Amino acid sequence: MKKISFGIDIGGINTAIGLVDQSGKIYCERVVSTKKYPYVDLYSNYVEDVAQSMRELLLQLDFEYELLGIGIGAPNASAVRGTIEQPANLWKYRADDSGDEAKRVFHLVEDLRGYFPECENIQITNDANAATIGEMVFGAARGMRDFAVVTLGTGLGSGFVANGEMIYGTEGFAGELGHICAVAEGRDCGCGLKGCIETYVSATGICRTAFELMATMRDKSLLREIPFNKLDSLQIAQAAAAGDPIAKEAFRYTAELLGKILGTVVTLFTPEAIIVFGGLAKAGEILFEPTKLYMEASTLPSQRGKTKLLASGITDGNIAVMGAAALIFKH
Amino acid sequence: MKKISFGIDIGGINTAIGLVDQSGKIYCERVVSTKKYPYVDLYSNYVEDVAQSMRELLLQLDFEYELLGIGIGAPNASAVRGTIEQPANLWKYRADDSGDEAKRVFHLVEDLRGYFPECENIQITNDANAATIGEMVFGAARGMRDFAVVTLGTGLGSGFVANGEMIYGTEGFAGELGHICAVAEGRDCGCGLKGCIETYVSATGICRTAFELMATMRDKSLLREIPFNKLDSLQIAQAAAAGDPIAKEAFRYTAELLGKILGTVVTLFTPEAIIVFGGLAKAGEILFEPTKLYMEASTLPSQRGKTKLLASGITDGNIAVMGAAALIFKH
Repeated sequence: MKKISFGIDIGGINTAIGLVDQSGKIYCERVVSTKKYPYVDLYSNYVEDVAQSMRELLLQLDFEYELLGIGIGAPNASAVRGTIEQPANLWKYRADDSGDEAKRVFHLVEDLRGYFPECENIQITNDANAATIGEMVFGAARGMRDFAVVTLGTGLGSGFVANGEMIYGTEGFAGELGHICAVAEGRDCGCGLKGCIETYVSATGICRTAFELMATMRDKSLLREIPFNKLDSLQIAQAAAAGDPIAKEAFRYTAELLGKILGTVVTLFTPEAIIVFGGLAKAGEILFEPTKLYMEASTLPSQRGKTKLLASGITDGNIAVMGAAALIFKH
Repeated sequence: MKKISFGIDIGGINTAIGLVDQSGKIYCERVVSTKKYPYVDLYSNYVEDVAQSMRELLLQLDFEYELLGIGIGAPNASAVRGTIEQPANLWKYRADDSGDEAKRVFHLVEDLRGYFPECENIQITNDANAATIGEMVFGAARGMRDFAVVTLGTGLGSGFVANGEMIYGTEGFAGELGHICAVAEGRDCGCGLKGCIETYVSATGICRTAFELMATMRDKSLLREIPFNKLDSLQIAQAAAAGDPIAKEAFRYTAELLGKILGTVVTLFTPEAIIVFGGLAKAGEILFEPTKLYMEASTLPSQRGKTKLLASGITDGNIAVMGAAALIFKH
């Protein structure tokens, strides 16, 4: 009998639901629009619709199975409390509402348990942590006891594993590398601080850098034809590959700051590997090669050469859904 | 029958050896001069003399005991390999020697095992990690599963515990908070990097700060009478308590950098507590109070207020010896 688990990835736009087996194979997938339920009072309809889709997926399986559990990855999730707390892009108050933000806490694990009473093992963690456990169970970190995952998407997410266990900290929110200060009194961050590394090293951060460089440098550049709101990191990568001096400098600077913060990670955790992936990481060697140099140079000399910098080991399938399911297979 | 363990603290000047019981009580202590054996070729005499002192201590016990093991704290120790590797202040090559620095590795656990074949559990870790485990077993971190210890002595040492386990990293050297960059292109550090936090936040770091401030500021100060090589952090603390403006600013600046780096620790690990101790920490509230403010201000807003800043819970007895023995009691 095949052992399977649900993997659920909750994003601001969509919720992806999959049934995954122990090898990481996804049997069937379904998408529920998260955006369709933008307000707090619609949250319970959302949970009901997700549960409904899950039941339908189970009916599609044409083999005998044992359902081990439900794993969920979501922004602002507390693994310790089984909740999603004050998520920036999910279930807001309506404009005419005067809800207490501190109470905007969604008890998703408890709520799903109502629909799946037969399922004892329901777990949630933030999306970067789910990706981290995905790498441990199915990807590049198989067999490793100490490693870190850094995701370079809209922001910079991270997860840390030491002694084979995720570092959740005292309330389940640990591992926020994206909000370490990279530049004193630097760029405004959505979190309220200044100079956070994710305002520089992320798909949006490198766009901000390109615009800064267009002001600083005098070189001709294709990027000068693109307005701020239309520029994306892929365009910068393509321009850099074509030799554009501003795009090349944007990648060098991004690699410098990423490399320095990874040097901090090595000095503190000395993991066996740091696995970097996400939209910006697709740029490949133009980012990885200088990052390695800056990382080694800013690592405590006695720790140098001990930590590998790797790309994700999951090249096929929905990493986020696999990562969420991995929460269940890990245990 | 009382269960006891050896706790051995190896420092550049002395090696302190104690017999410790499960409550942290030290029964008898002995000191062997480390400085008496400065060269690599004298290392085996050192081990022999330490073992000899240990046997003598056991003979002093006037009750029945079970010896559980030998715990050792030492600079540059690898918990994973049971070694001390390229220690800056222990067993150097003689001037006329052409030894290979990379091979200056001392297999202390193996070597002590030769003298104590009856003792299966012999463990070593670096001195800051030993202090960390000491706090977990005997001190302020009893019952905590996620916490950090920061020692402010000649340098800045640290140890991190997540999920109840020390973070050793892949080769046993993790947790070097002292060598995280606090000031870009800042002060020269003994490790070869620039701007490491320990060049600012430590008993020697605050002296460097005081001298910088004597150049920057025009205020009168008692410190202006003291040459660089005679100034210590206690004098600065006393001057600050007496209202000396340079000494006060030196503490404020030290607290600012310490608070910021602790904000990083909270953002990454969200420990239940950070325990700060060591020579400089004895300054008390003049250091702790502003450190707390800077720590909270530089922590990711969603993680604020979750981590306590505490003084050591071990106020009596040799923390280093107790911490080394705690290595054995922990398991």
